[in-house]
Amino acid sequence: MTPEPTADAPTAPRWIAVDWGTTRLRAWAMRGARPVDARASDRGMGRLAPAGFEPALLDLIGDWLPAAGRMRVIACGMAGARGGWAEAEYRAVPCPPIDPRRAIRAPAHDPRLDVRILPGLSQAEPPDVMRGEETQIAGFLAENPGFDGALCLPGTHSKWVRLSQGRVERFRSFMTGEVFSLLVGQSVLRLTIGAARPDPAALAEAGAEALADPHAAQSGLFPLRAAALLQGLAPERAAGRLSGLLIGAELAAARDFWQDGPTAIIGAPDLARLYETLLLAAGAQACHKDGTALVLAGLAAASLDLPEDT
Amino acid sequence: MTPEPTADAPTAPRWIAVDWGTTRLRAWAMRGARPVDARASDRGMGRLAPAGFEPALLDLIGDWLPAAGRMRVIACGMAGARGGWAEAEYRAVPCPPIDPRRAIRAPAHDPRLDVRILPGLSQAEPPDVMRGEETQIAGFLAENPGFDGALCLPGTHSKWVRLSQGRVERFRSFMTGEVFSLLVGQSVLRLTIGAARPDPAALAEAGAEALADPHAAQSGLFPLRAAALLQGLAPERAAGRLSGLLIGAELAAARDFWQDGPTAIIGAPDLARLYETLLLAAGAQACHKDGTALVLAGLAAASLDLPEDT
Repeated sequence: MTPEPTADAPTAPRWIAVDWGTTRLRAWAMRGARPVDARASDRGMGRLAPAGFEPALLDLIGDWLPAAGRMRVIACGMAGARGGWAEAEYRAVPCPPIDPRRAIRAPAHDPRLDVRILPGLSQAEPPDVMRGEETQIAGFLAENPGFDGALCLPGTHSKWVRLSQGRVERFRSFMTGEVFSLLVGQSVLRLTIGAARPDPAALAEAGAEALADPHAAQSGLFPLRAAALLQGLAPERAAGRLSGLLIGAELAAARDFWQDGPTAIIGAPDLARLYETLLLAAGAQACHKDGTALVLAGLAAASLDLPEDT
Repeated sequence: MTPEPTADAPTAPRWIAVDWGTTRLRAWAMRGARPVDARASDRGMGRLAPAGFEPALLDLIGDWLPAAGRMRVIACGMAGARGGWAEAEYRAVPCPPIDPRRAIRAPAHDPRLDVRILPGLSQAEPPDVMRGEETQIAGFLAENPGFDGALCLPGTHSKWVRLSQGRVERFRSFMTGEVFSLLVGQSVLRLTIGAARPDPAALAEAGAEALADPHAAQSGLFPLRAAALLQGLAPERAAGRLSGLLIGAELAAARDFWQDGPTAIIGAPDLARLYETLLLAAGAQACHKDGTALVLAGLAAASLDLPEDT
């Protein structure tokens, strides 16, 4: 059994950082900007009713809380959505990615919990929203304060973000990851692709095709099935071509973000590298950063700006 | 109880026409080119193992068979796919849409059944296949023998077909219908659209946008969710915009089929009219025809060309 932490132990958390997404809940025990412990669960917002958030959090990190006194918890992500723990109203761009004074308090029965949820960002035209990515952006800006360029955050709903002078000027979301999952898992292409991993060469080739021909992602889907039937196209190549067509179409539609100036890609390393490869091949100036480290940096930046007595 | 038909009764079928798709089985009792009865079931190819086809057919039309003697059954569609009743090899374009002499015999235990399945069409480059639509095309050509132009067959997997001198020159398939169903039923857009029917004005507007901007179908999906959250976009308008974006992107990618010469749209009336509206607005010369009547005309044409003793 782990001994109960005492407040003066060198690993006793001073505050708790939480990234609460649709499918996952991740928490870090923090001292200043330094994590001393980390945990995760699959109790994402998508599986929880509003009353379920506090028990899910206590189940995960209850033993990090002091016997007496309060613990500050700073959360970002879907916990602040309508239908989440407590709704944190979006902040409208252009604006800095986070403003800790706009964090809302989430209701908690346990008197030791002092939970603040950071709001997401919204854009009126074209309509768009984000929740969670704004904290990664703040983490990126904390490490790169003078950055002027684009961020790309690939994933279920990819985000492209224009940053200038510490502010999010505009952004655009794409359903690339979700469309890929649906096509592979549920469409007729499941018969061709199954659980195969994308072949990198096929991905690069199809990505270049989709960047050059804006209709390739429409015209190129069913031929994957036909090529498997007629020509024995391998599942890995079909998976690679599908991924390349969809990511290439996203890059083509986001060209105004990356064609001038630097682009930093923030995400899981495997996915970020795919985007980086296609962007570099298209002549963009791109690099990639790990998203987990940045969300923590963003929450730490919020912690600094949120005095204890607020 | 229906009295058993006798061969000389004026409504006794002389042959049976069958359209066996992935989700539906439809059969008609025929005298020449005239249907005297029609039935349908939901036992499509997708739900059947090879040994299940004969029982499914007998359950549906067993009482149309004579007490003694054989009945010709002419089928098209997925019954001829790999994993169907019996595999009918594709015929490669360019070629006339059907060649009844290439129909294959399907194995049957009931001695009264003489089942022939028409092959589908294939194309090597870009790889593509169809099964069932070739029979609708043959039905269209039987009624319009001199037609030189494009056919559009919208649906789960839409087909665009270039016809000239009675032959299919080339064709292209799009997964538009399947992508629409997946996005409405399974993606984050289900929260915005639910079971709403597409608003025609929103559909026309978004279709024109997607025809004018090839990236609209990539960039325009997530904003439907955001507009519902931020601006209360109505579910019917969101459904209409989604449908318009996807159909418009298909039309843009199929422009080489419809930009010169006439286009006949063959399909269910509601869906065919949506395509017709967008095509007419884009300056195309388009009309629509009911698909069910054409599949029957195609099967009747095949029946004429398939002598009894083959």
